[in-house]
Amino acid sequence: EKVAAMNAKKALQKKLEGGDEAEKPGKFVLKCPKGTRDYGAKAMAVRESVLKIMTDTFKRHGAETIETPVFELRDVLLGKYGEEGGKLVYDLQDQGGELLSMRYDLTVPFARFLAMNKVSAMKRYHIARVYRRDQPVMTRGRYREFYQCDFDIAGTYDSMIPEAECLKIMDEVLDALDLGEYTIKLNHRLMLDGMFAVIGSDDSQFKSVCASVDKLDKEPWEKVEKELINERGLTPDAAARLGSFVRFRELNPDLDNVAVLDQMMLIPELAANAKFKKGVEEIKLLLTYCTAFGVSNAVRVEPSLARGLDYYTGSIYEAVIPNGLPGVADDEGQPVGVGSVAGGGRYDGLVGMFAAKANVPCCGVSFGIERLFAIIEAKNTAEQAAIRTSSTQVFVASAQKNLLQQELKDGVVKLRNTQSREETTVKLDELESTLTRMLAA
Amino acid sequence: EKVAAMNAKKALQKKLEGGDEAEKPGKFVLKCPKGTRDYGAKAMAVRESVLKIMTDTFKRHGAETIETPVFELRDVLLGKYGEEGGKLVYDLQDQGGELLSMRYDLTVPFARFLAMNKVSAMKRYHIARVYRRDQPVMTRGRYREFYQCDFDIAGTYDSMIPEAECLKIMDEVLDALDLGEYTIKLNHRLMLDGMFAVIGSDDSQFKSVCASVDKLDKEPWEKVEKELINERGLTPDAAARLGSFVRFRELNPDLDNVAVLDQMMLIPELAANAKFKKGVEEIKLLLTYCTAFGVSNAVRVEPSLARGLDYYTGSIYEAVIPNGLPGVADDEGQPVGVGSVAGGGRYDGLVGMFAAKANVPCCGVSFGIERLFAIIEAKNTAEQAAIRTSSTQVFVASAQKNLLQQELKDGVVKLRNTQSREETTVKLDELESTLTRMLAA
Repeated sequence: EKVAAMNAKKALQKKLEGGDEAEKPGKFVLKCPKGTRDYGAKAMAVRESVLKIMTDTFKRHGAETIETPVFELRDVLLGKYGEEGGKLVYDLQDQGGELLSMRYDLTVPFARFLAMNKVSAMKRYHIARVYRRDQPVMTRGRYREFYQCDFDIAGTYDSMIPEAECLKIMDEVLDALDLGEYTIKLNHRLMLDGMFAVIGSDDSQFKSVCASVDKLDKEPWEKVEKELINERGLTPDAAARLGSFVRFRELNPDLDNVAVLDQMMLIPELAANAKFKKGVEEIKLLLTYCTAFGVSNAVRVEPSLARGLDYYTGSIYEAVIPNGLPGVADDEGQPVGVGSVAGGGRYDGLVGMFAAKANVPCCGVSFGIERLFAIIEAKNTAEQAAIRTSSTQVFVASAQKNLLQQELKDGVVKLRNTQSREETTVKLDELESTLTRMLAA
Repeated sequence: EKVAAMNAKKALQKKLEGGDEAEKPGKFVLKCPKGTRDYGAKAMAVRESVLKIMTDTFKRHGAETIETPVFELRDVLLGKYGEEGGKLVYDLQDQGGELLSMRYDLTVPFARFLAMNKVSAMKRYHIARVYRRDQPVMTRGRYREFYQCDFDIAGTYDSMIPEAECLKIMDEVLDALDLGEYTIKLNHRLMLDGMFAVIGSDDSQFKSVCASVDKLDKEPWEKVEKELINERGLTPDAAARLGSFVRFRELNPDLDNVAVLDQMMLIPELAANAKFKKGVEEIKLLLTYCTAFGVSNAVRVEPSLARGLDYYTGSIYEAVIPNGLPGVADDEGQPVGVGSVAGGGRYDGLVGMFAAKANVPCCGVSFGIERLFAIIEAKNTAEQAAIRTSSTQVFVASAQKNLLQQELKDGVVKLRNTQSREETTVKLDELESTLTRMLAA
């Protein structure tokens, strides 16, 4: 009886997990681990086309690439992702020897790489999978094992030059991917610090308040305000004040990037805050480079942009596709492509966590490739594009059993053009010239 | 006192593991997990050049590529690698949910992929890292995390056609890599089965006897014979008889491939064994295709070739570079490049272990890329080849602080040719035409 109940439970679980039916009772369910997927030939072809655009761009900017182990010593990752992130790290079983964990992103391994190999300057990209024991939402492209594509500049340069190159790269990649209109939101950690100091919020609240503010691109202010008061512990006055700062762009839609910054500096408490002032100066310098690099049209100063990670110390940025692609919808009819597709910022303290005496300032950008794959796949479906999964143009056809041997004896082969499906019988000694002719046609 | 002893032990361990010194006492050692490595920009450039040769070859043969998760349900891997292999699998910690293990090779995940997705025919390549908790010998290119590069043909085809394509691909890749002379050894699982049956060895001994016989390419017969008698439990008569079979090629150096097979078939007990006879017929058919495909010069029938893995059911093959590369030595002055660089065979039962009703016959080849990387790296060092780690040809130079801003005001940039290191100052509006001219030169 107990066994029957367990079997029923197992069968239900199977169904919920979407795995194939087991062949016979007692045999395990044939499936990928929760939150992971196979990339079949079609998905790989899409993946390769997207990655080629990215790597071409990175190489044009003179970047090198590296690879690091898929797992790190547990101590390397410990304490780098905050409390929430830390919980989501995959640990390996202790089988004797070192304690290991799967990488959670590519940034911390890069910092470890720089510190360990005493590299003080490097422009590198890294495309690889990372691991998070998150609740997967696979229909929306959220997996436990997923690709990240990072470009970072490590080393000491003139202020804001590396940031300008990161924004330029975001612009070039998104332009080449041809996904319609996009915006690159831009803010500064020091500006956020300044705003929070002015409203009297203390450091311990900083992260949770940021998390609420960051929701402003999806939720109305009223909802965020309630959360700030009821869950984050701000007074109604402080929340209102913070709202007037972080919504400055939204409330003044006619101002351009520089004007937003200048007008915020007219608020005496903000202007008097050294951090806020420094942040504004850096962003203004960055905007001059954006103009020089021809990316200022896409860039939009956005005081509400917060981003989650602890380790940012300077400018932060995020590319969003504000509207769904025209005519492109997912299985449930929802528009595809809304939301963040890339983001990054400056993190000057991370390498120093591994090698205090040899700290290296860094800034970078990470592309959300899984989402980009999903968008391109949906776009291809909408446009009914045929995906070629192999590079075959013409091949030798041998449809019947033992035919090939007969053909070898006769000294002929049958060629099939994979596009027209036309078949031709060719003598072996004319094969090369025929192939050359067909492929050139 | 106890603490001091522990610290001393830790310091010693650090030294043994070759990690960097810790910055301060109590801080962990900054290193990669045991048996793993970072691939810096130079190693990645070598890796890319090797992989391009391989992927170009696979694509020319019409192959598609896939990717599977880096870990699988533990049950998927269980029992597929024999007792020895099973011990070397990395397990993930049970953090609630499914029990997972890191992939040990790419073949079992491919079989799982075919069974789960009900794919009955596919020509695919897969280049990715696999994980084995082996004793690493990193100076010899033996790691715990290492790349494999597999090409496999799944599906029902005319006998020996897929094998012929695998051999052709081995030949094309090794030819393109330009590593000097190589030999592709060829044998058949059924021929081995037949030989073992004739000497009266039982199935339970098969694997351990194979392991001993497989050492014949490195060790003299006398040593292998002793091992067969003392450790594997063969009688001296049986061992001597087996020696006369597996050394047939070695003892008859003037015979060509077909003659070796024909002469072995003149031994009455072998000729009377149905398995041996079938194996010989298949290899002879394969040799006719090898001639037609132009690879027969590299192929050498070798009755002693056994290969470790349980799952082979038909022909098996292995490419070796018999001599070191001229002038290429490792740090210890030993020749580099000796030994096996690729291998594979037919495994018709593996997919059926996942889906008994939908079995798919398969055969394939796996390239030992870590060894190939090591050989190419040593060759480059010997030839003092300059490795380019970025694709930059000309770049904008800005040597002094704030110079870029001044140049932007003046409307000029300084270009540097990365090969000649020559610098030129160019007006912004002439930049495009100048770059075009410089890159075309």
